[in-house]
Amino acid sequence: MASLLRLPSLLKPSAAAARPSALLRRRCRAGTAASVSASRSQAAAATTGAAAPAPPETRGGGDREGQVTPRSVDFNAWYTDVIAAAELADYGPVRGTMVIRPYGYAIWEAIQDYLNVKFKETGHSNMYFPQFIPYSFIEKEASHVEGFSPELALVTIGGGKELEEKLVVRPTSETIVNHMFTKWIQSYRDLPLMINQWANVTRWEMRTKPFIRTLEFLWQEGHTAHATLEEAEKEAMQMIDVYTKFAYEQAAIPVIPGRKSRVETFAGANRTYTIEAMMGDRKALQAGTSHNLGQNFSRAFGTQFMDENSQIEHVWQTSWAISTRFVGGIIMTHGDDAGLMLPPNIAPIQVVIVPIWKKGDEKSAVMEAVSSVQNTLKEAGIRVKVDDSELRTPGWKFNFYEMKGVPIRLEIGPRDVTNKSVVISRRDIPGKQGKEFGVSMDPSILVDHIKGRLVEIQASLLQKAIAFRDSNIVDVSSYGELKEAIAEGKWARGPWSASDADELKVKEETSATIRCFPFEQPEGAKKCFMTGNPAEEVAIFAKSY
Amino acid sequence: MASLLRLPSLLKPSAAAARPSALLRRRCRAGTAASVSASRSQAAAATTGAAAPAPPETRGGGDREGQVTPRSVDFNAWYTDVIAAAELADYGPVRGTMVIRPYGYAIWEAIQDYLNVKFKETGHSNMYFPQFIPYSFIEKEASHVEGFSPELALVTIGGGKELEEKLVVRPTSETIVNHMFTKWIQSYRDLPLMINQWANVTRWEMRTKPFIRTLEFLWQEGHTAHATLEEAEKEAMQMIDVYTKFAYEQAAIPVIPGRKSRVETFAGANRTYTIEAMMGDRKALQAGTSHNLGQNFSRAFGTQFMDENSQIEHVWQTSWAISTRFVGGIIMTHGDDAGLMLPPNIAPIQVVIVPIWKKGDEKSAVMEAVSSVQNTLKEAGIRVKVDDSELRTPGWKFNFYEMKGVPIRLEIGPRDVTNKSVVISRRDIPGKQGKEFGVSMDPSILVDHIKGRLVEIQASLLQKAIAFRDSNIVDVSSYGELKEAIAEGKWARGPWSASDADELKVKEETSATIRCFPFEQPEGAKKCFMTGNPAEEVAIFAKSY
Repeated sequence: MASLLRLPSLLKPSAAAARPSALLRRRCRAGTAASVSASRSQAAAATTGAAAPAPPETRGGGDREGQVTPRSVDFNAWYTDVIAAAELADYGPVRGTMVIRPYGYAIWEAIQDYLNVKFKETGHSNMYFPQFIPYSFIEKEASHVEGFSPELALVTIGGGKELEEKLVVRPTSETIVNHMFTKWIQSYRDLPLMINQWANVTRWEMRTKPFIRTLEFLWQEGHTAHATLEEAEKEAMQMIDVYTKFAYEQAAIPVIPGRKSRVETFAGANRTYTIEAMMGDRKALQAGTSHNLGQNFSRAFGTQFMDENSQIEHVWQTSWAISTRFVGGIIMTHGDDAGLMLPPNIAPIQVVIVPIWKKGDEKSAVMEAVSSVQNTLKEAGIRVKVDDSELRTPGWKFNFYEMKGVPIRLEIGPRDVTNKSVVISRRDIPGKQGKEFGVSMDPSILVDHIKGRLVEIQASLLQKAIAFRDSNIVDVSSYGELKEAIAEGKWARGPWSASDADELKVKEETSATIRCFPFEQPEGAKKCFMTGNPAEEVAIFAKSY
Repeated sequence: MASLLRLPSLLKPSAAAARPSALLRRRCRAGTAASVSASRSQAAAATTGAAAPAPPETRGGGDREGQVTPRSVDFNAWYTDVIAAAELADYGPVRGTMVIRPYGYAIWEAIQDYLNVKFKETGHSNMYFPQFIPYSFIEKEASHVEGFSPELALVTIGGGKELEEKLVVRPTSETIVNHMFTKWIQSYRDLPLMINQWANVTRWEMRTKPFIRTLEFLWQEGHTAHATLEEAEKEAMQMIDVYTKFAYEQAAIPVIPGRKSRVETFAGANRTYTIEAMMGDRKALQAGTSHNLGQNFSRAFGTQFMDENSQIEHVWQTSWAISTRFVGGIIMTHGDDAGLMLPPNIAPIQVVIVPIWKKGDEKSAVMEAVSSVQNTLKEAGIRVKVDDSELRTPGWKFNFYEMKGVPIRLEIGPRDVTNKSVVISRRDIPGKQGKEFGVSMDPSILVDHIKGRLVEIQASLLQKAIAFRDSNIVDVSSYGELKEAIAEGKWARGPWSASDADELKVKEETSATIRCFPFEQPEGAKKCFMTGNPAEEVAIFAKSY
């Protein structure tokens, strides 16, 4: 029974579902209700042979804030509740804006650290463009202005005066980048020009959702110019490949890379490549895009170069981006009723150590062992945190770090000290099965053991997500089958060579859009499920964020 | 004579001074004029026993673009010329905005990398606040609105509609930070709350100058909340100390830390601490500030907490910032007529290797040695770049990397390969004295040698800047002496206990302001040089950026 109580918190749906989203409440901290914490902390103490000290100050007996709506009851409420309870983000004062709190920002930093290295390895340099863009720039590329003009934030007053020309707060930087590229590029020797910037961007979205769609968000945007179409195409493909590897290997998200349909292509691009991820509610999330811009912007901005034969040509370009939306994707791919579940490779904290003691004279021995284990793991390059706060019970901490999705928890109590061992709990396996007792504290054993477990958890999260994805994609050979699959909340995959109008009809009738024509295509002859005409490719349809 | 020609480029003042600032011209690349490059490349080749190959394509014989105005002739023109020629930045399309190019951004990244570690070591977490602030927030703190309202950029249109409340594009984030802190802070257990963000900020400046004062710039802003005034004061002092150490140890800028006068204190702060740097033209640059905000913002925003005795109190706060302005400070502290001179600790490239060969059959042996040396240095953690482009002559490259301020250049030619040695040139010591011939390529010797030289260069830049600073600060004991010192372009240091009105009079009559009351004060009784009254401190007066 004791170990049962160590299960991730499973709140009663009835109580939780009735409440408004926790993120909307004034204050949201910690994991679960005080009553649950209390019983769990006692249980925790029992298994490690020590009773937890009473919290020095209770936070109000009836305080049920911080509970999260069960995922199965209301996925959207669960999502915003987890964001609040795991302290990832909060709403800003302006409608649709978001404050990214330290724990959420640390996940973004992990994404940045990985991608920054990959971008540099593939020959890109970071730089920074101003965020204010003359309004006239946006109008230069026809489809670009059509795509972005409804979403613009405009600065009209500066230094107390009405401006002669309105300024656009960048929704993306292709226009200003091309304005500058036109100054910098003269000859083939200036190419390829390959840059990236980490920046904030603003899009006046009507329906916002933390991380997924906010008025302002953070992203990286790569911009490159090349001498030939082939080089630009190669670059666009290379970058979607970098994103795909990142998603699989770091975020444990089995995205499906592919090409967007004409209808869904970026405003100003010839081709858009995308990685599409299946969230826990089976809606698709466009998690990253890479565009072959052709000569659209170089023609609009006159970005030309002299080639080796002294001919003047327009450059061929790409742009590609991943944003803080990806953090939302991580939450919605791996999280469960107990909260966040982070892949070890991008977890800000990979291991949390919770010291447990009852009597004052036990404390020093426990803390000495804790400190020693902490140093051992830290020196081995593991991101470890000790929570030795005496303001919270061990049980409260168990819930809290489960909510925060920390992959591994170590418990160290007096009996563990005597046995020179620790108790390990895996976040991804609930209950007894995820626990190991009596793992040796000996550094030569412990480090390898923990590293091994982190690798296992990383792989296990990916496998679980792959299995979930694959069991929710249906191959369809008629429009009826597609409707059925979409109605069941699944993704539909089928041969498609119909018109843009047909694509829009599907969207209107089912709310599903073409997420992509996946790079991985079945062999053999195919017939469009809509028209019966021959089709070269299958497309994936799904509802999306 | 050959080695003389390897001196940093000294352009004729007459020719250069007549031209408009290079940054204003359409296109600015590379170091010096083609004619100078040609003679220098031949000279370079001569000393290493190889003639440089002719450039595959000349860039136009009369092309004198890329020359910089000598520093002594026109410091301001020199500054903007260097920014263009070293490819640090360019003007953006909107007046007063700046594009930070990859090399300039890499210096900013070096600043970020260092400070990020220090901020985390001192207990701060990174996070992100939205940049749009409701206009009403700015009005809540009386002196804050007075200080910032003339400089605001306002968003009045979003998504095609006039907004009900204008939005301020953040000029600094105290107001929105306090709005959020008020939500997050309830009890003493929530304190201290110590965060930082890396962000862009916007101030509608009328007179702009690249890096120093631009309409939009990048910075970090730290914000903390504490339970007591003493803790806040300690934090404000700790952070100005972090900045001071950074300036001395990394940027080799001997800043003077101190306290701002009431007149110069940040709009909304009780006390502002500052680091003041002397630029090459002896004007002062405020290079970083740390504010003790007292309870000004917590009272304006109702940011309260319950202390250990269950009393409700307003929190005590600090904020502190360093911006891309610091890059301008580095340029103006160390640069010379040949361009930028970067302290090794923050140089994006610490060592550039220039291969030199004449005949095709020499190339492979030279490139093999170059590659081997490159790997040796890279593995030793030295930031090394090989410029093996055949589009440029060695002489052109020498000028270019001098312009870019790379601390050490290695030349490797056929004779060096035979001797298993390299030629080393120090950027900070012109001519023969800065050169070493026949330094062994043996990794065990070369690595230590280069590392030793980098340490020497770092120390030497700091010592030179200290000597320059100290020879340009005059101790004054009367207003007449101050006027004289300021008229000579120097800094004046003297006892001060006069009124704010007197301070403003000095500014009006001499253009000098109190830069700070330095922390380091002379002992003994002092009399205010303006009033003759007793003074507790000396102040430093100077003209400033």
